[in-house]
Amino acid sequence: MHTSTPLSIRPPQTEIDVATSALAGKFGNRFSINTTVREQHGHTLTWLPVQPPDAVVFPQSTEEVAAIVKLCAQHRVPVIPFGTGTSLEGHVNAPYGGICIDTSLMKRIVAIHAEDLDCVIEPGVTRKELNEHLRDTGLFFPIDPGADASLGGMVSTRASGTNAVRYGTMKDNVLSLTVVTPDGEIVKTARRAKKSSAGYDLTRLFVGAEGTLGVVTEITLKLYGIPEAISAGVCPFPSIRACCDATIMTIQSGIPIARIELLDELTVRAVNLHSKLELPETPMLLVEFHGSDTSVKEQAERFGEIAEEFGGGPFAWATRPEDRSKLWQARHDAYWAGFTLRPGAKSLATDICVPISRLADCVEETHRDIAESHLVGPIVGHVGDGNFHVTLLVDMDDKAEIARTEKFLERLVRRGLAMEGTCTGEHGVGQAKMKYLLEEHPKATLDMMRTVKRAIDPLNIMNPGKVVQV
Amino acid sequence: MHTSTPLSIRPPQTEIDVATSALAGKFGNRFSINTTVREQHGHTLTWLPVQPPDAVVFPQSTEEVAAIVKLCAQHRVPVIPFGTGTSLEGHVNAPYGGICIDTSLMKRIVAIHAEDLDCVIEPGVTRKELNEHLRDTGLFFPIDPGADASLGGMVSTRASGTNAVRYGTMKDNVLSLTVVTPDGEIVKTARRAKKSSAGYDLTRLFVGAEGTLGVVTEITLKLYGIPEAISAGVCPFPSIRACCDATIMTIQSGIPIARIELLDELTVRAVNLHSKLELPETPMLLVEFHGSDTSVKEQAERFGEIAEEFGGGPFAWATRPEDRSKLWQARHDAYWAGFTLRPGAKSLATDICVPISRLADCVEETHRDIAESHLVGPIVGHVGDGNFHVTLLVDMDDKAEIARTEKFLERLVRRGLAMEGTCTGEHGVGQAKMKYLLEEHPKATLDMMRTVKRAIDPLNIMNPGKVVQV
Repeated sequence: MHTSTPLSIRPPQTEIDVATSALAGKFGNRFSINTTVREQHGHTLTWLPVQPPDAVVFPQSTEEVAAIVKLCAQHRVPVIPFGTGTSLEGHVNAPYGGICIDTSLMKRIVAIHAEDLDCVIEPGVTRKELNEHLRDTGLFFPIDPGADASLGGMVSTRASGTNAVRYGTMKDNVLSLTVVTPDGEIVKTARRAKKSSAGYDLTRLFVGAEGTLGVVTEITLKLYGIPEAISAGVCPFPSIRACCDATIMTIQSGIPIARIELLDELTVRAVNLHSKLELPETPMLLVEFHGSDTSVKEQAERFGEIAEEFGGGPFAWATRPEDRSKLWQARHDAYWAGFTLRPGAKSLATDICVPISRLADCVEETHRDIAESHLVGPIVGHVGDGNFHVTLLVDMDDKAEIARTEKFLERLVRRGLAMEGTCTGEHGVGQAKMKYLLEEHPKATLDMMRTVKRAIDPLNIMNPGKVVQV
Repeated sequence: MHTSTPLSIRPPQTEIDVATSALAGKFGNRFSINTTVREQHGHTLTWLPVQPPDAVVFPQSTEEVAAIVKLCAQHRVPVIPFGTGTSLEGHVNAPYGGICIDTSLMKRIVAIHAEDLDCVIEPGVTRKELNEHLRDTGLFFPIDPGADASLGGMVSTRASGTNAVRYGTMKDNVLSLTVVTPDGEIVKTARRAKKSSAGYDLTRLFVGAEGTLGVVTEITLKLYGIPEAISAGVCPFPSIRACCDATIMTIQSGIPIARIELLDELTVRAVNLHSKLELPETPMLLVEFHGSDTSVKEQAERFGEIAEEFGGGPFAWATRPEDRSKLWQARHDAYWAGFTLRPGAKSLATDICVPISRLADCVEETHRDIAESHLVGPIVGHVGDGNFHVTLLVDMDDKAEIARTEKFLERLVRRGLAMEGTCTGEHGVGQAKMKYLLEEHPKATLDMMRTVKRAIDPLNIMNPGKVVQV
């Protein structure tokens, strides 16, 4: 239906120059073409090569973002929204150049509505900053992807993490968004009511769109009361399969578990090395329960019984914060501990997600594949959702190892897809997983994603070269 | 961007004749142009005039639906998907004629995945049929909009109901959809993994689209373990405000309440009349708690304490099914009891939803408005979500009353919108609430909805004249 030709190559330098000059004039010291700044903004936690934008601008309001986008649309210059740069699949690279919109100056907490259990914030607020701000209200925002990511970035990657088994993902916790569209208009996706059937769900269209349909400039989030009590524990199991079976039984029996994390043997070994612990080097589940004093005790006891049924134990659990922290230390240290296994290596974190009934098969096959590929890759999993991470530790000077790693990553994704899973449970598509979308979805599905992208961003200026190629 | 002219008037009779002849030949006795059948399919629980389709066809598979839609697209004949006809805002009327696709023969339960807590079903399965089928598995599907609606219809209106405060709405409980698009292609929106960040959320785009973007032909739903124990109770309060304040406190304090329903005085009076009960004629909350034996007891006790703080009580609660049913009888009878207030009247149910902090204001003002308008309209509310229903009992022979009713409905919606609410929390837009979308959303938001509609359905054949006018 489209007659305009979408942008698929870098715009002429003259257009970029006109746009950057105009922005330099308007934003002064909130605008930069400094090489280091540009490279920082094209350089994220991915192992993909840096592709810096032509300039970085730091707006302070929705209206400023709209002005930047309008200017870019006029000159067909790409726009790349940027939060904290903690995404993992090349979401913020600028393959066609363009203007990076860094939202780090948009940190206002616009409103906290304690009675409605919601808040309105700007996209540069990070999850830790939000929870810090909420501390005296008795409320909290539960989604925790690990990194202290910006909420705008978390919206855009449809982030989740350890708490998702109980509180859902970003998809479930955004009530409304303000978004600057690719033509510089300002869309407010929904009212502040807790639910609505008033038209298409534009909120969910932007959640997970990775900045390819617009720039998120304000977010209304659900909040939760801080639980009266928390219990947490750690339980070794004889096998990955036993961990998964115990998890399935826990969820089926209706225990409202707040976190249930799998650590594989290698992760436990890394944590022992890193933190001088003496945990048994066997797969283990770390769990957390939220509720009343009575309820968290009961939940822990029932989990302990289930664990025992599957050969797990001893199950150590506690309710005092300092004791809980000690038990969960292995999980908190897991990422950094990984490096102990291979000092000097580059860490490459990826994720897939499968129906929970296939999780044990998938992790076991992946373990064999890692061994046969002569790679080092500890596994941790948000096992209640069927989601797990392989964090490969790669010697980037070893071309053969890199080649083996790339082949392994392909097999990993295909293994997940063959089990009715998805190529990414929570990290997103970015640049690195675009090729897998073609395998994950039927052609008609991908065509519909392209139709939506073309309709909303006919010039293809909004974070081009990510998610779907148009 | 579009060059084609979208259909906005009835297609030429010759095109309709060609399409209906072809369908008659292909579907035999699963095709009807019988006037009664057609009128049944344009006649739903709305008070809008019947607008029958030109024919009704009863497909048995996704492929048959695709064939029907392809034929209709070729002749630019409208397609109106139909479930059980229990929608309330004119969703299945055929203002431009066309072919009604009745999904009532698509009732296969394709798969139950107990370990993954999901199932795959066809859209004609009703919620009661699904739960009947699940009975021996220990699992259930919680969403309960009142009517025994088809799951396809519930997807399409983004339905919710009494359980939404704990289990969410259809938005939160659909994992994946198979949809026939307006050009007759078959789109599968997602894999069966519990979460995914692999591209745009097409699932949520179709949930609540009211059949205007495609025909849902297969649904993957989340399931839940039947709670080990349930407690339920009823608690009178001195005022609507006290009910709302107790609700807010209950949710804030983290009690995982499964249902919390408000009945206003008039509803209680109706129930007393209808069911020969002797309930105190004062606002009341009906509550239900799901969990372990210990936990549902504790939840009920804590709710009782909160209720007392706000002047509520005595709080009667029970855990045995027969006792619970007795306590909840008032809620179950509420709809039919309404007619007792005005025998012979037509019932006109509508809903709005506001942030819960504004619910007491909104219901109180609505009560005053009903009185001043000389109307009869009992109110019940899914008060944990800020959602309430006014069921007006209208003498359809009284033109002046109808005029007063229409004015009241406008004020009701505007009152909700003025409180940051939505014109519909769960019934949907249909024909009747299209005009309010213009008031609920900024122009840019509605423009984006139109952009999406035009991109996916450029010929405007898919349930035209609903949700957004293109």
